[in-house]
Amino acid sequence: MPVINKRKIINDPVYGFIAVPNEFVFDLIEHSWFQRLRYIHQLGLTNLVYPGAQHTRFQHALGAMHLMMEALEVLKNKGITITEEESEAVTIAVLLHDIGHGPFSHTLENILVKGISHEQLSVQLMSALNDEFDNRLELAISIFKNQYAKKFLHQLVSSQLDMDRLDYLNRDSFFTGVAEGVIGYDRIIKMLNVADDELVVEEKGIYSIEKFLVSRRLMYWQVYLHKTVLSAELMLVRIIERAQQLVGEGKNLFASPSLLYFLQRKYSESNNDEMLNYFTGLDDSDILSAIKVWQQHEDDVLSFLSKHLIKRKLFAIQLQENDFDVQTIQGIKESVLQNIDSDKKNLRYYLLEESTFNHAYRPDEGPIKIRKKDGTILNLDAASGQLNVNVLTQAVVKKYICYPKELKI
Amino acid sequence: MPVINKRKIINDPVYGFIAVPNEFVFDLIEHSWFQRLRYIHQLGLTNLVYPGAQHTRFQHALGAMHLMMEALEVLKNKGITITEEESEAVTIAVLLHDIGHGPFSHTLENILVKGISHEQLSVQLMSALNDEFDNRLELAISIFKNQYAKKFLHQLVSSQLDMDRLDYLNRDSFFTGVAEGVIGYDRIIKMLNVADDELVVEEKGIYSIEKFLVSRRLMYWQVYLHKTVLSAELMLVRIIERAQQLVGEGKNLFASPSLLYFLQRKYSESNNDEMLNYFTGLDDSDILSAIKVWQQHEDDVLSFLSKHLIKRKLFAIQLQENDFDVQTIQGIKESVLQNIDSDKKNLRYYLLEESTFNHAYRPDEGPIKIRKKDGTILNLDAASGQLNVNVLTQAVVKKYICYPKELKI
Amino acid sequence: MPVINKRKIINDPVYGFIAVPNEFVFDLIEHSWFQRLRYIHQLGLTNLVYPGAQHTRFQHALGAMHLMMEALEVLKNKGITITEEESEAVTIAVLLHDIGHGPFSHTLENILVKGISHEQLSVQLMSALNDEFDNRLELAISIFKNQYAKKFLHQLVSSQLDMDRLDYLNRDSFFTGVAEGVIGYDRIIKMLNVADDELVVEEKGIYSIEKFLVSRRLMYWQVYLHKTVLSAELMLVRIIERAQQLVGEGKNLFASPSLLYFLQRKYSESNNDEMLNYFTGLDDSDILSAIKVWQQHEDDVLSFLSKHLIKRKLFAIQLQENDFDVQTIQGIKESVLQNIDSDKKNLRYYLLEESTFNHAYRPDEGPIKIRKKDGTILNLDAASGQLNVNVLTQAVVKKYICYPKELKI
Amino acid sequence: MPVINKRKIINDPVYGFIAVPNEFVFDLIEHSWFQRLRYIHQLGLTNLVYPGAQHTRFQHALGAMHLMMEALEVLKNKGITITEEESEAVTIAVLLHDIGHGPFSHTLENILVKGISHEQLSVQLMSALNDEFDNRLELAISIFKNQYAKKFLHQLVSSQLDMDRLDYLNRDSFFTGVAEGVIGYDRIIKMLNVADDELVVEEKGIYSIEKFLVSRRLMYWQVYLHKTVLSAELMLVRIIERAQQLVGEGKNLFASPSLLYFLQRKYSESNNDEMLNYFTGLDDSDILSAIKVWQQHEDDVLSFLSKHLIKRKLFAIQLQENDFDVQTIQGIKESVLQNIDSDKKNLRYYLLEESTFNHAYRPDEGPIKIRKKDGTILNLDAASGQLNVNVLTQAVVKKYICYPKELKI
Repeated sequence: MPVINKRKIINDPVYGFIAVPNEFVFDLIEHSWFQRLRYIHQLGLTNLVYPGAQHTRFQHALGAMHLMMEALEVLKNKGITITEEESEAVTIAVLLHDIGHGPFSHTLENILVKGISHEQLSVQLMSALNDEFDNRLELAISIFKNQYAKKFLHQLVSSQLDMDRLDYLNRDSFFTGVAEGVIGYDRIIKMLNVADDELVVEEKGIYSIEKFLVSRRLMYWQVYLHKTVLSAELMLVRIIERAQQLVGEGKNLFASPSLLYFLQRKYSESNNDEMLNYFTGLDDSDILSAIKVWQQHEDDVLSFLSKHLIKRKLFAIQLQENDFDVQTIQGIKESVLQNIDSDKKNLRYYLLEESTFNHAYRPDEGPIKIRKKDGTILNLDAASGQLNVNVLTQAVVKKYICYPKELKI
Repeated sequence: MPVINKRKIINDPVYGFIAVPNEFVFDLIEHSWFQRLRYIHQLGLTNLVYPGAQHTRFQHALGAMHLMMEALEVLKNKGITITEEESEAVTIAVLLHDIGHGPFSHTLENILVKGISHEQLSVQLMSALNDEFDNRLELAISIFKNQYAKKFLHQLVSSQLDMDRLDYLNRDSFFTGVAEGVIGYDRIIKMLNVADDELVVEEKGIYSIEKFLVSRRLMYWQVYLHKTVLSAELMLVRIIERAQQLVGEGKNLFASPSLLYFLQRKYSESNNDEMLNYFTGLDDSDILSAIKVWQQHEDDVLSFLSKHLIKRKLFAIQLQENDFDVQTIQGIKESVLQNIDSDKKNLRYYLLEESTFNHAYRPDEGPIKIRKKDGTILNLDAASGQLNVNVLTQAVVKKYICYPKELKI
Repeated sequence: MPVINKRKIINDPVYGFIAVPNEFVFDLIEHSWFQRLRYIHQLGLTNLVYPGAQHTRFQHALGAMHLMMEALEVLKNKGITITEEESEAVTIAVLLHDIGHGPFSHTLENILVKGISHEQLSVQLMSALNDEFDNRLELAISIFKNQYAKKFLHQLVSSQLDMDRLDYLNRDSFFTGVAEGVIGYDRIIKMLNVADDELVVEEKGIYSIEKFLVSRRLMYWQVYLHKTVLSAELMLVRIIERAQQLVGEGKNLFASPSLLYFLQRKYSESNNDEMLNYFTGLDDSDILSAIKVWQQHEDDVLSFLSKHLIKRKLFAIQLQENDFDVQTIQGIKESVLQNIDSDKKNLRYYLLEESTFNHAYRPDEGPIKIRKKDGTILNLDAASGQLNVNVLTQAVVKKYICYPKELKI
Repeated sequence: MPVINKRKIINDPVYGFIAVPNEFVFDLIEHSWFQRLRYIHQLGLTNLVYPGAQHTRFQHALGAMHLMMEALEVLKNKGITITEEESEAVTIAVLLHDIGHGPFSHTLENILVKGISHEQLSVQLMSALNDEFDNRLELAISIFKNQYAKKFLHQLVSSQLDMDRLDYLNRDSFFTGVAEGVIGYDRIIKMLNVADDELVVEEKGIYSIEKFLVSRRLMYWQVYLHKTVLSAELMLVRIIERAQQLVGEGKNLFASPSLLYFLQRKYSESNNDEMLNYFTGLDDSDILSAIKVWQQHEDDVLSFLSKHLIKRKLFAIQLQENDFDVQTIQGIKESVLQNIDSDKKNLRYYLLEESTFNHAYRPDEGPIKIRKKDGTILNLDAASGQLNVNVLTQAVVKKYICYPKELKI
């Protein structure tokens, strides 16, 4: 009778069908903490530019699980020993890797829940699930934290070439409609192997890896760091910061109890369980419905920013590699003070300054390894005489400023 | 300088790129009433079964606009006279055809805003836009209401084979991952023509039409009327009804001002502008974030239903062609009264009864016309000696009941 | 070391990758008789209308093998007992099911090799392979001929819903570009089961089956029985018949030795091995390169037909459900005699008469069985109150005549 | 009535539908010289490794024409002046750019027709068509030869980013099933513009260009220069060379008259028309059907090579960047002499030596130009501070040797 659950199949536009491997994994998916991911968009406000980008952390987690099962199948067929328990554990590790994401994911990370990363929250939630499910997540947590002996299992969950990345690049390309970002994930997975307990790619997969890295960079510049998206995200950050400030000053704000809890910043290490309880009640809808109401708030800063975001009157953005010159900044500030808000303390809500940063490939965090036909293992850059790895390795830093379009700077 | 807007291109995973035809249409898309559609899912709660079904009314409206432009191109190339003004108007008519949809679209239609259909709301909003934009929507509204002389233009917006339907079947198939629902929309559009001021399909498109109708039925049974989705939707309906009842009794409920307005049912014909104002502030997030809070409400009925929906403990559902026998119903009622809530007045919140109804094809609402090579125009069923039109024409009515799974009936 | 072959993977545009299950199957694929299928187009002359239809019997056979492995996986997961030997045998049976196809497949069947069907040739070649490979094809042949106890294995190879059909419908749709013909093969396969030793489809797959049958019919009328293709095929038939006649009269014709053998019709039951030897040397290129040369042949009939086919001056075709009236036929005949060739004996080469025939679904050859949730097994038509099975069951017969376009009838 | 042709639509699995722009273009497509391209595979023997690679020069030429029409539409919408005549001419130029390809395209180029490239043959055939069609190809030929004033038109036909390349990369990826090679051709085309009479790419298309170049390199190493394909192609070259030698020595060989003409190498400048006449009678089938017969030829070299190719017993291949050391070569030679053929003169037919060469990008042949938002035009490498253009620019030379696998070196 438990057979029924085991056969559970989920439709997925990206991979066709995703099969749930067993009943326990199915129970985890059914858990309300995991169900919450249905209401958190994978790409936050990106749908303001790419309307198709409505996919959720829920879909991504299932997708990463699916790729993990494919990768395990490939590795087992190549003679790599992976026990049933390890298979389940690494599958769960990737399924739950994002369970600690809050509303609007990376955008509000460290803003809404100050000082706690989503990875830390994921570990805390996994631990709580471990308690709830009689320690059956022990091994999954160990792999997730890279404390398990077989290192390659962790690498499947988190590395330069993990199932997380393969799924999100593919899925984000699919749903944004940026077809060029689509990667040959099936070929890459078929080229995976393990040597000296490290995940390696067989030599003939080297061009697929290059394409993967180039796709990754393309997705950064075309989607993840799209100017308009950066502007919208920074507006959202300032809205939450302003709300936190107002709540701190004792002002009344419409907010769900969970959201209010984090606006009040009541949590500390001593009340972690309480914090997790509120946290698992939060999703994108709390934020969005609150901001809609805040459009009418008496605080001019809050209502200004909220109206502009909801009505999609997004701030103008300038993006460049160097610092902005003092004069430009000064000019905008004066224009703000003259035309919008004469209170200097509020300037940071109208002239938004930030910088962004990305690598297509970070060998310093553990290079992608290539196994040549003769068995030699090389780092990607050494293996690829004619590849463009160095270029992809360079960090790219960009500074940007955003300000209301009505300023006409 | 206005040239820039005219060249606006939007990425769409279904069609690749969607071009906005001109600046005025772009302005309508930018309008906050249209932007609101970004926050209303096309398929409501369907994502509880098909996680990919996260697409919105915003995407669908753009998609229908895109197909309209393709259809106009085809018809013009076939020598059908369509002026620039008519082109713009019919494009706007289809772009705005769903602008009157509220949160969770069809599910809460007539529940949240009692007595007013989404089509009526669409017309009211179009009229308001017409005032705002110096009567430039006059012709679009006339076509939408089927008051314009060239009848086929209305048929492109609303008929058995309109651009709305072509887009939603295609788009819903795409995002649910039910690949079999995908239709040959490009071929159907290429086969369109006009005869005697009616939209017709050229004879060699007849098998494509059959496949379209069969796809439509498949989507009904596999997606639109999926048992689990029906159950979730009916739960949502009862939640809102209960909330309206409680508000009517003077109870306090967490809700955004817009939502509260409709829970209080304050609107009447005399204050229509006020109603529209609140209505255009509503979207899925108001409902969702409220229901999350209602999980903790003191009213047991409201909290029971809200918890079950949010945690995805959906009610069991039975679906059949005939009425349920009295005994079954009575058994469930008794079980509810014994195990969940002894108040008979609340029974309708635990034993949910409803019926559903569909036609794949309704010739009574204007049959699909086929133009034979010799110029004769026939109704689809007459044209297709060997097609299965009659079967597709039959109305299918199903009754269903839902109740908490914990009852174990 | 034999491991290498076992891991053999073949790129396929339809399914992505096709894995060869084991070394023995790989050896069969490497066999020159199977390699010959690389040079036989799956759809003969269809590429004259659908230029993409260049795919071969080789690709189709691999595709059917791929689907077979997927189906076996599904059935095994549902607890159906299928031994390793049976798996291999049924896979081989479907891999080799078309090995007896000659050049231009169905078009020249019974024309080039008179009186022997391609199924008979397939069995003969399988038997010869069985001798060559130490009887390892014994079980495969037994399944292919429906002599093996487990009847459902034969049904996977040959029935109304076999892997052959699933692959060819899918593949032919893919390569012709008739996207509407694409079927949900993966869903159908996932719905397969076995009951009472018969292949059945689970109830919830019933709409997929309907779409499959409708696709099949659409492909018939849009591709397989496309008027222009029918005309080209009949021209090809007459060319070969004329060539056989001329060779019979002792005339010299350019032809490869293999082709010449079949033009001379030297084979009989007594020299079957010799016949098979020549047969396995034949493919589309023998026919095509000969017809190109025959354009310059001194026989006017042969050169007329050959030129018209190669230069794609295909004959006009009329297609109808009833017999053509005598007058029409007579008119064409007279026009031929006056304008092209005054020899009455040659009329059949200029006025080509033929009829075609198809069923989308033939329950008389073994109906598709549906298994309801309660375990009852029903025939498709009984199971589907609202399906259009009857219509799909009707045989459709069409008569057609072809004649040179220059006649301007 | 001529309207009918103008509306001609062709199904294409890659782009869906291809429309023929006008009647004259349709007449060119119908011409027997263009129809001949139906029988020449785009990728020669590549289908021996990628069975899906059965697509033809015919499909490619139509595909390139389709992209040209899209590009012209984009450029016209951006205000670039292109007359109706120029549109037709550049469309024809790309449609006919490969009409001079012989059997097995590049593989037998300069082997079968010594000393004349396929471009020269294309020009000769275009000139002949120009005569046939009352000089209507004048402008097309002028553009093709880069003699027309508007240089960018030629660049659309032939440059680092022409419609030929966009189509073949895309189409070859599609049919080989090497999905990673698929390029964002629609985005690239949408980014095209003209500045200073040169084709340029708008700045925001720069990552698409990078992906295009990386795809191109990937396709080189994964498909075009696949080891097994290289081996098969070199075997084919040697077969034709041996056949030419034998014919030169007066031996009898089975061959169609057209093939025989080129084996005899009778052509010279004085009989160019005769040569073209035979040439336009040649396609892959002449070669293939001849080689099948040559398997039984009395010349051991010819029959050895022919059997190995047809039965797909392809020669082993070694590929490296440096010259092979003398010892290796000597070892193979001795093994050939001892085991296969003791005649030293025949060594080149058993030890095949060749080198290959490719650039993903050749700025020396005219760099890809990028137009920045401020209007500046830069070469790709200058425009892309962080791109990997230099790496892609490097020429890669590889040497290879092939020899019979039975030698077991």
